[in-house]
Amino acid sequence: MRVAIIMGSMSDFSKVEPAVSILQKYGIKVDVRCYSAHRSPIELGDFIEEANKNGTEVIIAAAGMAAALPGVIASMTILPVIGVPISGSNLEGMDALLSIVQMPPGIPVATVAINGSKNAAYLALQMMAMKHDCIREQLCAYRKQMEVDALKANEEMIEKFK
Amino acid sequence: MRVAIIMGSMSDFSKVEPAVSILQKYGIKVDVRCYSAHRSPIELGDFIEEANKNGTEVIIAAAGMAAALPGVIASMTILPVIGVPISGSNLEGMDALLSIVQMPPGIPVATVAINGSKNAAYLALQMMAMKHDCIREQLCAYRKQMEVDALKANEEMIEKFK
Amino acid sequence: MRVAIIMGSMSDFSKVEPAVSILQKYGIKVDVRCYSAHRSPIELGDFIEEANKNGTEVIIAAAGMAAALPGVIASMTILPVIGVPISGSNLEGMDALLSIVQMPPGIPVATVAINGSKNAAYLALQMMAMKHDCIREQLCAYRKQMEVDALKANEEMIEKFK
Amino acid sequence: MRVAIIMGSMSDFSKVEPAVSILQKYGIKVDVRCYSAHRSPIELGDFIEEANKNGTEVIIAAAGMAAALPGVIASMTILPVIGVPISGSNLEGMDALLSIVQMPPGIPVATVAINGSKNAAYLALQMMAMKHDCIREQLCAYRKQMEVDALKANEEMIEKFK
Amino acid sequence: MRVAIIMGSMSDFSKVEPAVSILQKYGIKVDVRCYSAHRSPIELGDFIEEANKNGTEVIIAAAGMAAALPGVIASMTILPVIGVPISGSNLEGMDALLSIVQMPPGIPVATVAINGSKNAAYLALQMMAMKHDCIREQLCAYRKQMEVDALKANEEMIEKFK
Amino acid sequence: MRVAIIMGSMSDFSKVEPAVSILQKYGIKVDVRCYSAHRSPIELGDFIEEANKNGTEVIIAAAGMAAALPGVIASMTILPVIGVPISGSNLEGMDALLSIVQMPPGIPVATVAINGSKNAAYLALQMMAMKHDCIREQLCAYRKQMEVDALKANEEMIEKFK
Amino acid sequence: MRVAIIMGSMSDFSKVEPAVSILQKYGIKVDVRCYSAHRSPIELGDFIEEANKNGTEVIIAAAGMAAALPGVIASMTILPVIGVPISGSNLEGMDALLSIVQMPPGIPVATVAINGSKNAAYLALQMMAMKHDCIREQLCAYRKQMEVDALKANEEMIEKFK
Amino acid sequence: MRVAIIMGSMSDFSKVEPAVSILQKYGIKVDVRCYSAHRSPIELGDFIEEANKNGTEVIIAAAGMAAALPGVIASMTILPVIGVPISGSNLEGMDALLSIVQMPPGIPVATVAINGSKNAAYLALQMMAMKHDCIREQLCAYRKQMEVDALKANEEMIEKFK
Repeated sequence: MRVAIIMGSMSDFSKVEPAVSILQKYGIKVDVRCYSAHRSPIELGDFIEEANKNGTEVIIAAAGMAAALPGVIASMTILPVIGVPISGSNLEGMDALLSIVQMPPGIPVATVAINGSKNAAYLALQMMAMKHDCIREQLCAYRKQMEVDALKANEEMIEKFK
Repeated sequence: MRVAIIMGSMSDFSKVEPAVSILQKYGIKVDVRCYSAHRSPIELGDFIEEANKNGTEVIIAAAGMAAALPGVIASMTILPVIGVPISGSNLEGMDALLSIVQMPPGIPVATVAINGSKNAAYLALQMMAMKHDCIREQLCAYRKQMEVDALKANEEMIEKFK
Repeated sequence: MRVAIIMGSMSDFSKVEPAVSILQKYGIKVDVRCYSAHRSPIELGDFIEEANKNGTEVIIAAAGMAAALPGVIASMTILPVIGVPISGSNLEGMDALLSIVQMPPGIPVATVAINGSKNAAYLALQMMAMKHDCIREQLCAYRKQMEVDALKANEEMIEKFK
Repeated sequence: MRVAIIMGSMSDFSKVEPAVSILQKYGIKVDVRCYSAHRSPIELGDFIEEANKNGTEVIIAAAGMAAALPGVIASMTILPVIGVPISGSNLEGMDALLSIVQMPPGIPVATVAINGSKNAAYLALQMMAMKHDCIREQLCAYRKQMEVDALKANEEMIEKFK
Repeated sequence: MRVAIIMGSMSDFSKVEPAVSILQKYGIKVDVRCYSAHRSPIELGDFIEEANKNGTEVIIAAAGMAAALPGVIASMTILPVIGVPISGSNLEGMDALLSIVQMPPGIPVATVAINGSKNAAYLALQMMAMKHDCIREQLCAYRKQMEVDALKANEEMIEKFK
Repeated sequence: MRVAIIMGSMSDFSKVEPAVSILQKYGIKVDVRCYSAHRSPIELGDFIEEANKNGTEVIIAAAGMAAALPGVIASMTILPVIGVPISGSNLEGMDALLSIVQMPPGIPVATVAINGSKNAAYLALQMMAMKHDCIREQLCAYRKQMEVDALKANEEMIEKFK
Repeated sequence: MRVAIIMGSMSDFSKVEPAVSILQKYGIKVDVRCYSAHRSPIELGDFIEEANKNGTEVIIAAAGMAAALPGVIASMTILPVIGVPISGSNLEGMDALLSIVQMPPGIPVATVAINGSKNAAYLALQMMAMKHDCIREQLCAYRKQMEVDALKANEEMIEKFK
Repeated sequence: MRVAIIMGSMSDFSKVEPAVSILQKYGIKVDVRCYSAHRSPIELGDFIEEANKNGTEVIIAAAGMAAALPGVIASMTILPVIGVPISGSNLEGMDALLSIVQMPPGIPVATVAINGSKNAAYLALQMMAMKHDCIREQLCAYRKQMEVDALKANEEMIEKFK
C-alpha cells in the first residue's frame, strides 16, 4: 500500500504534512517529493513513470498559484490524482483552486478544499479501501470515532448552557 | 463493477448524461438516481445504505446552487464520492463549486470542474482501475487514442497553414 | 419561547455566542448544540425531530466552508431556519455564504451576513414577535434605544468638530 | 393572514410573481407594491407604517443592483423582512446579494437566493406557521408532496436506465 | 463653503478623518455626523433636509457592508453625494463598493475607492471649484506640489541607483 | 453650460448615448468625443487642455476593460471627472469598474454603475446645479416627476392585484 | 522571423486566428499547432525542442479552463512565452487568466487579456522589433495609422453632434 | 543592454527591488524611476521619449489599485512593456491585475503575477536573449541551476521521510 505526495514548492510543506501523518497512521508507505511542473519537469516525469510501476496506488499533488502540477501529473498516469490547492499567494488559493479543478475532459484531477491536505489523505484512503479491507475497517472505525467526538463536543456544549 | 450517479434535480440530467455513456462504454453497471439532499433525504439515505452493500464502488453526485448533495452523501459512506458542480444558477456554478469543494476535514469529496461530468466518469474509472485490470487496459487504450486524436487535429492544423 | 442554535464545529463557538446572549436577555430558552451535517448527521436528525415537537420556534444554524448544515436542517423541519455563514476558511466566508443562501426552491434558509450571529438572534426574535407580545415590546424598546445611542454617538461627533 | 411584497422596480415583476402565486394558494392576502428606497422613499415609509398596523405579518422585498430596499424597510419595522436579490445588472445579482445580506447588527434581513422569490414565499409561510395551524398543515402537505414528486422523478430515471 | 460628512458607524471614523483634515485645510466648514440609514433614518432625514437649506454644497457619505447610506442620502437631495465604501467586513469592502456604486438610474452616487476618503475630499473640492475661485487656485497649487513631490521622489530613486 | 463626454472606443457609443440625450434635454452643450488613453493620448491631451479653458464644467469618461481613460483625464484637469465602466469584455465590466474606481489619493474619479451613463449625466447636472439655478429647478422637477411615475407604477400594481 | 502559436484545443481556433493573420501581415512565418499540456505532452515537448533550434523567436500559447499550457511550455524554453487566456468555460476565462498569469518565480509567462490574441501578436512583434528593424518600422506605421483611425472616428462623432 | 523599471508609487519599491537585483546580476543597466500616470504624466512622457532613443530595450512598470501606468507607458512606445500588478489595496491586487492585463487591442502589456517582479525581470531577460547571446547563456545556466536546486530540495525531502 503506497501513496506518493508531491508538492510544488518546499514552502508548501507545512500544509502538506498532515496528509503524510494520516497516511502513515494507516500503515501506508508514503513517498514525499518536491517537484515543480515548471522547474523540474523531467525529474517529475521520471518519478511518475516509476510510480506507475512500483505499486503506487494514488498520487496527491499540492500546489499554489498557477497550480499546473496536479494536472500535469494526471496527464502522465492513469492512477487517480488528488489535487490540493495551496493558499500561497495574494489571492488566498482561489487561483490555485481554479487552476486545479477546471481540468479539460479526459484528464481528471480529484480536487479537495484549499489547504485541504487532510481530506486528500482521507480521499486516498477511501479509494484504496476499495481494494484493501484493512483500510476499510480503519476508515469505518475513524468515522465511528468522529461521531463519538462530535457527541462529546456536544455534551460539553449542553453542559455549558444548562 | 458498479457506479451510482445521483443528481440533485431532474434539470441537471443533460449535464450528467455524458458520465453515464462513458461508464457504460467501459462495461460498468450504472445506477442513475435523482435525489435531493434537501427534498428527499430519507430516500437518499436508503439508497446510499444499499449502495454500501451492493457492490457499488464509486458514487458520483452532481448538484447546482447550494450543492449540499455530494457532501451529504460523503457523510453516509466511505466509498469515494465524486462531486460535479452544476451551473444552474445566476452565479454560473461558482456557488456549486465552493459548496462542493470546501468540505471540512474528515469527509472528502473529489471535486471536478463545473459541469465536468465526463471527468467524473474518468475519475471513477481511474479509481476502479486500481482493482480491475480490464478497466486499466481500456483507460490506457483511451489515453493512447487521445494522443492519436490530438496528433490528427494537429496535422489538420499544419495542413491548413502550409 | 425556545430557540435552537446549532453550530457545525466547536471552533465556530465564539462567533455564535453573541446570539446566545441576546436571546437569553429576551428571556428565550436557548438550546445550543454542535452538530455537523457531515460528521454527526444521525444525532442532528434526532435533535431536529425533537425540536419539531418540543416547542422550539426558530432554529439558527451557523457553519463555515461548504456550509451544508443550515440547508440540511431546513430539509428536516418546517420551522424557520436562519443560516449564519462563518468565515472559517481562506475564502473569508464567501464559500459559506453561497453554500447557505443559494438554496433550491422549496427549502428556504433565511441567511444573514457573514459572522452575523447577532442579526440571526434579532431575526429570530422578530419572527417570534409575531406571536409573543412580550418580545415585540422588547424589540420596540431596543429599536428606540438604538436611536438614542445613535444620537449620542452623533453628539459626540458634533462636540468633537465644534 | 397578510403579507406585503414590495419590489424596487416594475422590471422586477416577472421575478417576483411566483411568490405572489404561492402565497395566494395558501390563502394569504398579498399586498403587492412597487416602491423604491431611492425614488419613492416617502410613499414607501407611509406604506410600511400602515403595514405595521394593518395585520401584515411578513414583508418580502425584492431589488436589484445596489439593493437598499430590503434594509431600508427593515429599519422601519420589526416585522420580519425577507430580501430577494434580483439579477438585473451585469453582475448577475452578486451586487444585490451583497447589498442585501451584509446588514449591520440590529437590523436583520432574511436573505434568500438570487431571484429566489419562491423561497421568499415559503420562508414567509414557515414564519407564519408558527402562529397559524392552517398554514403549518399545508406546509407539511407540501413537503410530503415534494417527496412524492422526488420519488416519481426518480422512478422515471430508474425506468430510463433499466 | 460647507460640506457634510456622514459616516454610517462610529467605527468608520478613523477612515473618514483624512477627508475632514483636507477639507478644513481648504477653509471649508465641515459638518461631521454619524447617522445610519438603518438605525437613525429619521435624524438622518432631518439633517439632510437642513443641509438642503443651510448652504451645504456637497455631501460625503462613508459606510461599510450593505452600505445603503450614500444612496439613501442621494434620494433625499439633489446635492452631489460622494460615497466612500468602507472595508469593515470580511469581504474587505467589496460588499460596500457594490452596494454604493451600482445605483439605479436617476439617483447617482459619485463613488470613490474602498477607504478612499482622501479622494472624496478632493472630489468635493473639485466640484466646489466650479463656483469658488479660491478653491480652484488651491487645487491647482496642490496639483503642482504633487508634481514637485513626485519629481523629488524620483530624484531620490535616481540617486539610489546611480 | 458645457459638458464633455469622452468614450474610449466607438463601440461604447450606444451605452454612452443616453447621457447625451439627458444633458441636451437640460440645455447643456455637449461635446462628444472618442479618444483612447492608449491609442490617441496626444489628441486627448489637447482636447482636455481646451476643455480646461472653454467653460466645460464637468467631464464624463466612459471606458471598458483596463479602463485607464477616466483616470488619465482626471490627471490632466481639476474639473470633476465622472467615470462610467463599460461592460465590453468577458468580465462584464468588473474589470472596468475596478480600473476606474480604485484611483490613488489625489486624483479622484467619480464612479457610477457599470453602463451607468444615465447616472453620469444626472451626477454632472447635480454638480452644475451648485452654480446654475436653472438646472437645480429642472432637477427638482425631475425628482418630483420620478415620484409621480413611481406612484403611477404602484397604482397599476395595486389595480392588478385587487 | 518565426513565431509559434500553440492552442490547447481545436475549439480555441477561432479565438486564436486573429493572431495568425496579424503576424502573417508582418511577414512572419507562423507555425500553428494544437497541443495539449495534458493530452499530448510528448509531442508538445518535441515541438518545443525543435522550436528552440529552428529560429523560432517567440511562442504564443492560448488555452482555457485550467490553462497549464503556457506555463508548461515556458518551463521547456527560454524563448519568451505569451499566454492568452481563453473564455471557454462557465467562468468566462477568469479561471484561465489566473492559471496563466499567477506563475511562480523563475518561469514567467507574458499574459494578455482574456481572448486577447490580437495583443499576443502585437506583443510578439514588439519583442521581435528589438532585433528586426523591418518590424519596428511596420509597428511605428501601425501606431500612426491607429492615431489616424482614432481621429477619423472622432471626426465622425463631432459631425454627428454638431 | 538597458532596462527601465518604473513604479507608480514609492511605497511599491520593496516589491520592485527584486527585479532590479536580478537584472543587475545579469549585467543590465537598470534605470529605476517613480512616475505616476496620474500624478506626473509629463515627466513620465519625457522619460519614455528618452527611453525610446537611449537604447532601452524593455520597460517594466509596476503599479497598484487602478493601475493605469503600464498601459499608459505602452501607448507611448513600441518597446515591450511588462506590467506588474501590486497588492497595495484592500482587493489584494485583483484590481491592479485586471487594470493591467485587460488592455484593448493594439497596445499590449505583458502581465506577470501579482507582486511578480522577479518574473518581470526574467521575462525581460528572455526577451533580450533574442538578441544578446550573453544573456541567453546566463539564462540557460540559471535554468540548469534551478533544476539542481529543485533536486537538492527533493533529496532533503527523501532523506526526511526515509
